[in-house]
This record gives sequence, C-alpha cells and structure tokens, in this order.
Amino acid sequence: MAHPLDGFFRAESIAVVGASRQPDKVGHAVLEALQRGGFPGRLYPVNPNADEILGLKCYPSVSAIPGPVRQAVIVVPVEIALDAVKDCGKKGVTHIAMITAGFREAGHPEREEQLLKLLRKYRMRCIGPNILGVLDAHAKLDTLFLPVNRLTRPTPGGISIVSQSGAVGSALFDVAAAEGHGFAKFISYGNATDVDESDLLDYLAQDTDTKVVAMYLEGVRDGKKFIRACRKVTRQKPLVVIKGGMTAAGGKATMSHTGSLAGSAEVYAGAFKQAGVVTAQFLEQFLSMVKLFEHARAVPKGPRVAIITNGGGFGVEASDAVIEEGLQMAEFSKKTTRALAKVLPAITTAHNPLDVLGDATNERYRAAVDACMADPGVDIVLALALPQVPRVDLAGVAKIFGEAHQHGKKPIIVVTTGAAASTEFKKHLAPYGIPCFDFPETAVIAAKGLVEYWTRVRKQG
Amino acid sequence: MAHPLDGFFRAESIAVVGASRQPDKVGHAVLEALQRGGFPGRLYPVNPNADEILGLKCYPSVSAIPGPVRQAVIVVPVEIALDAVKDCGKKGVTHIAMITAGFREAGHPEREEQLLKLLRKYRMRCIGPNILGVLDAHAKLDTLFLPVNRLTRPTPGGISIVSQSGAVGSALFDVAAAEGHGFAKFISYGNATDVDESDLLDYLAQDTDTKVVAMYLEGVRDGKKFIRACRKVTRQKPLVVIKGGMTAAGGKATMSHTGSLAGSAEVYAGAFKQAGVVTAQFLEQFLSMVKLFEHARAVPKGPRVAIITNGGGFGVEASDAVIEEGLQMAEFSKKTTRALAKVLPAITTAHNPLDVLGDATNERYRAAVDACMADPGVDIVLALALPQVPRVDLAGVAKIFGEAHQHGKKPIIVVTTGAAASTEFKKHLAPYGIPCFDFPETAVIAAKGLVEYWTRVRKQG
Repeated sequence: MAHPLDGFFRAESIAVVGASRQPDKVGHAVLEALQRGGFPGRLYPVNPNADEILGLKCYPSVSAIPGPVRQAVIVVPVEIALDAVKDCGKKGVTHIAMITAGFREAGHPEREEQLLKLLRKYRMRCIGPNILGVLDAHAKLDTLFLPVNRLTRPTPGGISIVSQSGAVGSALFDVAAAEGHGFAKFISYGNATDVDESDLLDYLAQDTDTKVVAMYLEGVRDGKKFIRACRKVTRQKPLVVIKGGMTAAGGKATMSHTGSLAGSAEVYAGAFKQAGVVTAQFLEQFLSMVKLFEHARAVPKGPRVAIITNGGGFGVEASDAVIEEGLQMAEFSKKTTRALAKVLPAITTAHNPLDVLGDATNERYRAAVDACMADPGVDIVLALALPQVPRVDLAGVAKIFGEAHQHGKKPIIVVTTGAAASTEFKKHLAPYGIPCFDFPETAVIAAKGLVEYWTRVRKQG
Repeated sequence: MAHPLDGFFRAESIAVVGASRQPDKVGHAVLEALQRGGFPGRLYPVNPNADEILGLKCYPSVSAIPGPVRQAVIVVPVEIALDAVKDCGKKGVTHIAMITAGFREAGHPEREEQLLKLLRKYRMRCIGPNILGVLDAHAKLDTLFLPVNRLTRPTPGGISIVSQSGAVGSALFDVAAAEGHGFAKFISYGNATDVDESDLLDYLAQDTDTKVVAMYLEGVRDGKKFIRACRKVTRQKPLVVIKGGMTAAGGKATMSHTGSLAGSAEVYAGAFKQAGVVTAQFLEQFLSMVKLFEHARAVPKGPRVAIITNGGGFGVEASDAVIEEGLQMAEFSKKTTRALAKVLPAITTAHNPLDVLGDATNERYRAAVDACMADPGVDIVLALALPQVPRVDLAGVAKIFGEAHQHGKKPIIVVTTGAAASTEFKKHLAPYGIPCFDFPETAVIAAKGLVEYWTRVRKQG
C-alpha cells in the first residue's frame, strides 16, 4: 500500500532545483550525491544559466522538463525558493525536499506560511526547509549535500535516523556508517513546516527496510499525534530517542536552535515510557543502543545478565554497571555450577561474574558460553575478552562468541577494551554480526535498552 | 632523596629468575620486554637449565651472578618461588617484582606469610605476587609479560597507572598508549603482600615524571594510611580513582577477584572527596579524565563552561550535560556579546551555547574562541567542530583551537564526533597537544574532574 511520504524515498524522477557546476556549491553536491549513489531513476538538473551539469542535460525550470517529475530537491537562494515551489506545483511535482534555509530559523516565519499555502494549493508534501537532504540506502537515493570525504556513506541495512538537528544526525550517522553498521534511511527534517517528526515516524513504522528507528528530538509540535506515532513504531520495531533540552540550559538552547519548546523532562520521560520508547541520556549511549538493536538476534526474556570475563576487574566493573543501570545479576543454577566446576581451574569459582582467568583457553570460554546459554536463569550474556594476555586465541574466541550469537538463543554482547589486539579481535568477530562494544558499561547500557523495549512490548501483549 | 621503592623503577641491574628460551613462556616475555624496551642497566637471566637466553649469559641462580643485583623479577613456578626469594635475599637483592601467582588468590595465604617473613629477614621490598610486571617509560624498564603485539608500549609522558587489576590496568593503558598519550609508570600490584596501594601512591606523589596518577582500586588494606597517601598525592598532582565494587554485586565480585573487602560506597565517596581525589563511575569516563589531566595546560578558575559549536544540536546536548554533571553554563559579558554580534550572522545570537553555524568560517571560530578566552565569566571552553559540513576548514580550526590551548589562559577542550573527517581533524590537532574527545558528554565529565580537582586544591590552600 502506498504511503503519502513514499515519494521522498521511492521517487522515479528527481529534479535538483538550483543545481550548480561549481563544485563547492550545495547544488553541485546534491546532484553529485545522487549520481555517485547510483540513483536508478531520472535525474534533472534545473538551472537557467547552464546547459549541462555533471554530464546531465540542464533545464531552465522544472516546468520545462519533459515528462513527469515526482520529487524536487530545492537548493536555490531563499529569495526565489517560493517561486521554485510554485513552478514545481504547476509541473505536478508531489514531493519537495527543501534544503534552502532562511525561514523561521532566520526570523522569517511568514515565508513558511507562504510555503505551506503553496504546498496545500498544489497538494504537495515537503520535508524541510533547512535540511541536509535525505538518504535511502536501499533505494540509492542520496540528496545529502555533505560530501563523501566528510560524511561516510553506509551500506544498506536496518537503521533509520530521524534528526531534528542535521549536525547530530549526520555526525552519529558518520560514526556508525564508518563502523560498518547498515542503514535504511537518514532524514534531517529541519523546520518541519509540513512533514513533521510524527509523520516520519508513521512512515518508518510501516517501512519494511527499517528495523530500528533512532531519533534525535528537541521539541514536538503536536504531543498527542507524536505519542500515537511512537506507539505505531514501537508495536513494530524499537524506537530509540535522545531528547535534547532536558535541562533548563539545554531547553534555552533548543529555543534558539530550532525554535522548539523543549518541554518538561518529566512529561517527556513519562510519555516515552508509556509509548514503549527507549531513551538515552548521552549521545554515545544512544548510538550504542541503536547498534545493539541492529545486531541483536535474540529477544531477552528478562533483565538477568551473566558476565563472562578473562579479567577479574572487568567482571567487577561490569557487575557494578549491571546493578547501577537497573538490570540484574543472573544466579547460576546448580547444574551450571557443576558443569563449570569440571572445566574451570580450582582457583576460580563458578559464579557470576564468571572469571575464566587470564590464561583462559578456548575450551574454558566455550564451556562458559555453553553453560550460560543453557541456564534458564540467564537472559543476556555479556562476554568479555581482554586481548592483552597472550593466551587468548582471538580467532577461536571470536568463533565461540559468534556462533552463540548466530544460534540466536539469547542475546550475547561482546566487550573488548584495547588497541591493536582489540581491533584484530573485532575483525574476527565482524563476519558473525555479533554486537561488540569497547567498554563494559556501554554494553550494559545498551543491554538495558534492549531489555526495556522487549519488556514493554511483552507487557503490551 | 632516595625513596625506598626507587629500586623498582631505577634499578641498575635486574635478574629475571625463571627466564626461558621458549617464546611462549612468561620468563621469555619478561626478558624480551626488558631488551626490546632498551633497558640500559645490566640484565641477568637466571635458569639452571640454560647457558644463554636471548643472547645473554644465563646463571643457575641469583647468587651465582657476579657483581651486585638490585632487582629480581621472579617468574618461576610457585612451588620454588620462595626458594628463589631466599636466594635473592642472600645475594643482597633489595627489590623483588613477583609475577608468579598461586598465593592467597589460589587459596594459599600461608605462602604469602612465608614470603613476608623472608622479605623482612633480608630487608627486601616486593611488588606482588600475582602481577603483570612493572613499566617505567622514562627509565626504559619494562618487565610486563604481555607481548608488544597485544599491549601497546607508550611514549614517555606524565600518566602513571596503578591498578589492583592487571586486566583493567593493561587494557586502559593499551587504549591510551595507542592514542599517543604519554606514560610515566604502569604498575599492577597484585596481592600487595608487601608493597600496597598506599606505598605506591606515596612513591608517585614524589615522582617528578608522574603528572597525573590513575588508579583502579577494589579494596584498601589500611584506610588511614591510604587517605594519607591520597592527600600526599593530591597536594602535588591530580589523582583519579575508579573504585570497583561500589554495588553489592560488584563487591561480591571483588571478594573472589582480589579477596578485597570492597567496603561501603558512601564511606569511600566521602573519603575521596576529603582527600581531593577525583573519581569516575565508568572506565571510559575514568580514562577521559586522566587524558584531560595529562593534556590540560591551564587551571580552571571555576565551573563556568562556554560552549562553541558549529552544530546547534550538539550545543543543546553539551548544555544538558554541563547541567546534569553539576557544572555551570557561563553567561557572556556585554562586551563579549557586542564583540560577537559584529562577526556572527544575524540569524544566530551571541549567547551560550554559541552556535557559529554549519557554514562557520575560520574568522567566526576565531572570534568565538577569542571572546570566550577574554570573558572573565568563562572558566572553561568546550570547542565543538563537527567536520561533516564541507565549509569547516579542518586545519584552520585546529590551529585556532590549538593556539588558544598553547596560550594556556583557560582550559579549552575539543569535541569532534565523526569518522574519516574527524580523524583528519584530530591529526591537525595532535601537534598542539590539545585535549580532544569524541562526544560532548565525555568531554563535560572530564572537565568536571578538572574543576573538582582544582576547586579542592584551592580550598585546601
């Protein structure tokens, strides 16, 4: 079934209004991004002063383009942007991505009112103005004006980022894409004159490419509509939100940034909880949660964490984090304890956190993972491998962890802290698609997100 | 003035008791580490079954070595370790680094009692047993048995790590050393039969190579002695502690890890505060604080933070973090506001967080940094550069930030979130030695450590 916003992501034809021959211009970057990304549809540069740009025939106006045009990306100066919109309307364009800035955020709310009138008159939908563009990795539709040497382009995958801040969205996207995480969509929605945060959530709820929605939010236009859209998403897939402006100082900053009323932190927290939305306090933790949702194969049945480690101190730190973050330490069954006692050396004991010691063999790691996977009292396995000690067989341990992940009985999350040896270990882990973090606390916070989502989903039936 | 522990770090001669020809043995790794590290003193492998190891003449016992031996690194099996200690005592060895494990942690406290008796009898000092070894980057003394392809070796610098957990110490050391942070000493002190955490702090307090002390701690043997040692350090230099076992589950884990009574979290928190010790909750935050102390040139006069950013959303997130972490948002003076109004475009306003916008020029960044450095209401500058936008001149902005840092008027901390472009930006920053973090919240938490230390030092006069 077609969704009203489909034309932003599945356009057969796109006009770039304000396309430019000059490489440092936004109108050049957008056309180049579409070409480089391999956009499979028809591409029309629009610029009255050029015949050809990047090898494509250029048109003086949208209405001069032969044949239908579904989407227009507008990058012209704000003074002529509304004329361009009108031209699009006359041509029958249905979707506009308005990169041009200089509206409400620049003290010109009247320009947005005029924009909205034109959109209604011609029955067009618009993302923006004041956006970075839109990316759909599956559809090979990339109108982001950030060049590839500045912003990594992702492989197609399951993460969709929706961000009220172009900078927050693109910086986190850059980090995750460079780490190999797969993306469905990246949408910066700017001033949200027409299409707002709730419309986009509504779209992503039904988008089969999107497996997890990551949202940076400063304010909400229509609270009830937003909560409805959140619920629609969380019934289908996880929604992780980081809300800017949770303090008075942050709220003041959102006012001057996006003109958003940040609202009461308590009200937001309550609403998110009710709607099954998982929230993060810090950007790095937000990103970790999103990454874990992308990679996790199994659903945690509860909050009970088993910790396996070859470094005792890391077991201590991870245990502290489990409790501090509101998860629980799993208690091993007698069967587990007995099974482990046979394999572990006498100087360690078969309780949680499970210290397989600095000289851990593959056999010891395998026994620990198998026992935790089999124990009904364990919901999540946190598997630590500190690679500094020479005895750890990095390829072997990666295989043990990776296979347990692929078997998919319980979520297993790897932590490895270090430099060259950790990088090597991660290379061994990568083919298994197993989630992996640099620090135990980050992994625990991400696990907390996983547990919260599934607990709420289960509660809602 | 000589310190009783000098012999661990400034030994003219070292015997490796249990040196081995087999590359996978600890006794081989230690000798190799000393050689590879360029130890300038005399080196004696001790092994009754070898004539030569790694090109060095081997001796059947320590007492068979001609000439004096100051330090012995003992790696022989635990069953003959005490005989080796006795042999060292007879020879006149004064310092023993006991890597050999199998004492209290393996259910044999009586072996530690015997060890202690021998140490007293022969007036020897001992770090360990059950340690990874010791590293002094300035003295080129490296007895760590972790091979260089698993543990990065650092450049000489100001950080000293003291860790009750070998794994925590070495993993964090690995991360920081690979990032180019300079180290003075790395000490894992294991069972602390003789030399304990307080003795080591006492040593590092007077060690001129050490500019900041980083400590991972599970338990303390003698509380009063420990607090005295902490105070001695913090009167000279920052001491950052992360305490494992702050929860009941973590405390249970420390019992089986190092046999430490983790103690009450509240008691520790109070004592640390009184002694001017800065504490961290998470390992990554701990590391960030240590890195900031290493790089910071200026002393913050107070907790008032100015935020400069080319991404509005990051300004919001950083503002939230400043408040949540108990720091304050600086209020700009009228002079600052007027100066900035001349340079900033009309659509942004000269308040904190200061949004220099996505198209920020070097001129705009320079004006922002200069104004914040000049404003008496600003104690710390948090300078964000999101490199995804094409207009940011990475080399130019790095120069502006870097020179402000080197001028040393106020602490300036850089944040850059991203992938390839951030890496490039960091390369431009590195020559200036300016502190730089990947996420705004991490930077704020590190800044909080800086403010806490200097506030307490100032209070104590």
